[in-house]
Amino acid sequence: MSTILRVDMDDQSHKWEAVPKKYETLGGRAFTSAVINDEVDPTCHPLREFNKIVIAPGLLAGTAAPSSGRLSIGGKSPLTGGIKEANAGGLTANRLGRLGIKGIIIEGAPPADSQDWYSIVAGRDSCSVVKTNDYAGIGCYELIGRIWKDYPVKPGIIGCGITGQRLMKSAGVFGNDLENRSPGRYAARGGLGAVFGSKRVLAVISDSTDGAIPLPKDKDRFDKGREALHEAIDKHVVTGKLNDAQGNPYGELKNYGTNILQNFLSENGALPTRGFSSGRFSGAARISGEAVHELVDRTRAKFGGVAEGRYAHPCQPGCVIACSNIVPFEDTGKAHVSPLEYESAWAFGSNLDIDVLHDVAELNRLCNDLGLDAIETGNALAMLMEGGVIEYGDGPAAIETLKEVYKPDSIIGRLIASGTKTTGETLGVTRIPVVKGQAIPAYDPRPIRGIGVTYATTPMGADHTAGYTIAAELDGIKGTVTDPRELKKAELSRYFQALTAYIDATGYCLFIAFPVLDNDDGFNGMVDSVNGFLGKDIDVIEYGLDVLKNERDFNKRAGFTAEDDRLPEFFKSEPLPPHKLTFDVSDEEIDTVFGGI
Amino acid sequence: MSTILRVDMDDQSHKWEAVPKKYETLGGRAFTSAVINDEVDPTCHPLREFNKIVIAPGLLAGTAAPSSGRLSIGGKSPLTGGIKEANAGGLTANRLGRLGIKGIIIEGAPPADSQDWYSIVAGRDSCSVVKTNDYAGIGCYELIGRIWKDYPVKPGIIGCGITGQRLMKSAGVFGNDLENRSPGRYAARGGLGAVFGSKRVLAVISDSTDGAIPLPKDKDRFDKGREALHEAIDKHVVTGKLNDAQGNPYGELKNYGTNILQNFLSENGALPTRGFSSGRFSGAARISGEAVHELVDRTRAKFGGVAEGRYAHPCQPGCVIACSNIVPFEDTGKAHVSPLEYESAWAFGSNLDIDVLHDVAELNRLCNDLGLDAIETGNALAMLMEGGVIEYGDGPAAIETLKEVYKPDSIIGRLIASGTKTTGETLGVTRIPVVKGQAIPAYDPRPIRGIGVTYATTPMGADHTAGYTIAAELDGIKGTVTDPRELKKAELSRYFQALTAYIDATGYCLFIAFPVLDNDDGFNGMVDSVNGFLGKDIDVIEYGLDVLKNERDFNKRAGFTAEDDRLPEFFKSEPLPPHKLTFDVSDEEIDTVFGGI
Repeated sequence: MSTILRVDMDDQSHKWEAVPKKYETLGGRAFTSAVINDEVDPTCHPLREFNKIVIAPGLLAGTAAPSSGRLSIGGKSPLTGGIKEANAGGLTANRLGRLGIKGIIIEGAPPADSQDWYSIVAGRDSCSVVKTNDYAGIGCYELIGRIWKDYPVKPGIIGCGITGQRLMKSAGVFGNDLENRSPGRYAARGGLGAVFGSKRVLAVISDSTDGAIPLPKDKDRFDKGREALHEAIDKHVVTGKLNDAQGNPYGELKNYGTNILQNFLSENGALPTRGFSSGRFSGAARISGEAVHELVDRTRAKFGGVAEGRYAHPCQPGCVIACSNIVPFEDTGKAHVSPLEYESAWAFGSNLDIDVLHDVAELNRLCNDLGLDAIETGNALAMLMEGGVIEYGDGPAAIETLKEVYKPDSIIGRLIASGTKTTGETLGVTRIPVVKGQAIPAYDPRPIRGIGVTYATTPMGADHTAGYTIAAELDGIKGTVTDPRELKKAELSRYFQALTAYIDATGYCLFIAFPVLDNDDGFNGMVDSVNGFLGKDIDVIEYGLDVLKNERDFNKRAGFTAEDDRLPEFFKSEPLPPHKLTFDVSDEEIDTVFGGI
Repeated sequence: MSTILRVDMDDQSHKWEAVPKKYETLGGRAFTSAVINDEVDPTCHPLREFNKIVIAPGLLAGTAAPSSGRLSIGGKSPLTGGIKEANAGGLTANRLGRLGIKGIIIEGAPPADSQDWYSIVAGRDSCSVVKTNDYAGIGCYELIGRIWKDYPVKPGIIGCGITGQRLMKSAGVFGNDLENRSPGRYAARGGLGAVFGSKRVLAVISDSTDGAIPLPKDKDRFDKGREALHEAIDKHVVTGKLNDAQGNPYGELKNYGTNILQNFLSENGALPTRGFSSGRFSGAARISGEAVHELVDRTRAKFGGVAEGRYAHPCQPGCVIACSNIVPFEDTGKAHVSPLEYESAWAFGSNLDIDVLHDVAELNRLCNDLGLDAIETGNALAMLMEGGVIEYGDGPAAIETLKEVYKPDSIIGRLIASGTKTTGETLGVTRIPVVKGQAIPAYDPRPIRGIGVTYATTPMGADHTAGYTIAAELDGIKGTVTDPRELKKAELSRYFQALTAYIDATGYCLFIAFPVLDNDDGFNGMVDSVNGFLGKDIDVIEYGLDVLKNERDFNKRAGFTAEDDRLPEFFKSEPLPPHKLTFDVSDEEIDTVFGGI
């Protein structure tokens, strides 16, 4: 039996509500987007009392389904002005799943002159909203450390750092990891950390003591499905086991993490380099997943079991993909940052022309500590470089400048934390890589046009995870992108967006898409696990399109039009070296992505 | 015979074009908005090569019609993302009218890596685009001084200051005044100075040597009309002569300028004070038009003819209203700033809780020198105060902070020059007074609801001059606004917006609206002068609505919807002292303003 926990920050009261019938099959993103669309006025100010935060574990969170512990956080985005769902791994989805909490809705706000900060502690049929002023104003690493000590039940912890507390538009929602080593499991995008700040909620702490593993409606089907999926995951070269039968490295994500893409994208001329001015980065290898793999091996060889470096590190309980990592210092064996993903390595590396791995790692660590979205922040730093404030390639200068964000009075700190668009415009930059105000991630849309269509049309603002057409496009890059499914770019993007919305609802990690798309047994396993859990037959694509319909409806009522579904002008007028391509998907084709829904 | 001058900044070439038939009756704003809507892709980046600048004198510019020398400048606004027309007095409209130039269209842009700055010099059938790199990077006072010396023909000069050169979104287009004392005749709003900067055009210099007074098609009707209008202007208490028959002060604008409103609005509880948190300012009298009048009188009494202080100072050749002023230093008799309008005195005075006249004047002078819009900048400074960066009421701190804009590397300087929204959001302020991204001017919309409807619905972004319902509303302020015309707020706003669009096309100063609305002879005089000049019968309101249709069409195609026609949330949720009013015109009523067109 699952329930909804509703917290009213006007007076810090809460109540438990039965799940309305219409929300019964909704989890994760499907739930957050439905509630936001149903309950939030799309024209409201995102950082005042009328916005809401919705926190929802995926449908299968807390179960034995493999890699199914993603957490969705929803609200109206202060960065895009539209609906937002950001999701992450970590502990919280598992804890909420075990507590039988379908979603937490945080609404209202203390009076404007309130100086108090609160944390919400959710347990088995219990909730308290406690004043935690001593948690405010400190780094996120210290913050999770204190909470972990104050609540010695290995709780899931999510919340906002100092940037969220200051209502900065790039503030993400951090989450702690399995060992509480790092607040690096970020629902990073779209400024939802600032929405936490606007409600004066520092943290949501979930204690699943006395919790229980959620029971599927049709246990046989569920078990059969999750096992088939697990097998497909293990077999696939992207998501599979660490080593093959001969002991050679096999699964790409386990060995190199998402950052295996760094070299690959560069080789294909699609790695956005120096503020989207080239598709190839001469320093890619030095900041790549392969480089991290070798660094970990070297460090572990040197320090043995004491070394903290890892690859194949899971980001959530029950993850069998384990694409995460811990980047160690070679001289001490201690952890520098966890994780260093492709997106962050790109945002602070190739994007800034920085090829020193520990400069990149340090920039990422600072974001984790400050409560910032790494993609948005990397792009904001690129704007500072475009604007001549710091030099491209100067890692130490980038680090020192990012540290300005700690200072409440630093205007440049405020600017960086306000995101790419604000930073770029303030410096008079006209090559600003954003869609709907949100920074474009690590795939240049000129050579990879399908992802450009996703950037343009997803209700989320530029977001590669919203419809990862890369999976289909990577084969045939270099301007003659071929599509294995023989779909046009618009259809390709729509398919991936719908599939993604479904996966984001289930709690499954998006990376199951590789084995699911390549292997019918994997696909059917996914479907059986979800349908077995719900005891219902759900159509994957219809379900996903329904989520997107809710999201687009919200955005439309917020004032979005087709003109918001566009890439920045410079992608159409500036050819990208080395292949000299511009983005040439027509507006008309772009508008067919959701023309029908 | 009038012509269009088209300058292509790609290669600095130009050509003269005959006026297409469809533009024959269009002048000023009607011309700029038609050309922008016809020629500019509404989705283009406003600060890249596809935007255009259109400069157009009003229809009657250069003629003997009273107060008919307004100049319109149009383009896609980098501040609002929509169409923009900003207009001003000064010399240029007169010069262009005498040259027979209906409009100058500046398009294209030098290559992105160009370091050169250009000026466009227009004369009788001649045009040259000259490299003027030595005009770059200096204050606007020095800039116009140099040009005046380099072109000793008393030219009209418009252009952008250092903020426009740096593509800052608050940069206006300056214009020189009759004596070339000040660059204070600003087409200030919407960032068109940055569009100049993006085309690397520093100045447009118009030399009307060998020019001629434009000839009306129907001279009798024109003369009859302009004389009747002149008489109505002279008689009206707002626009009339300096003194009555008994030698007592009579015409309000001549005696006190627009800043007569400072005390009046405060008394009525509608003067936005301390960042729109009160409607009454205890220091209003010290920065009022009356205070300036007395200062001028005292200074002139002390220094006689040497004193530079003035009221009843005309802003354009042939102005019979002469509402402008020169604020003197009492200890030297020298000019401090010209003009100090109500809007600037409000923006830097009551709005910032500053009641020291020379602090306010200095902030205004700095804006003139920096090339900044005073309304946008005053509101941006208020955001710095809301955000705690400087204290409300601290004039010297505001001055020092504004001076940061001179420094190319000052981030706070860049921020201020990026406008109210950017400044407010960067500081985490959620009470940001903007519509369509443009700062709200000096009338709080809570007690004066009609002007709120204008702020919300004008295609220009918040702009009091776009539909000055104040003229009708001021009688019945204090929450029980009565409307002398018995129109609802939406109808009132639509009427004023249409009338204004017509007046902005004619070249007449908007202040003729007072005698025109109060006196049928004045209205008919206006109509006869325009129709006599054109030799055609033009319907005032139909003509105005056609202008608005063009503008709204552009904005719609740029992606604007009804949701952009809204005031910020806090006007609806925060009651304004002293009358405790919120803005309560419904969205439905607002949408009827242009529901029909």
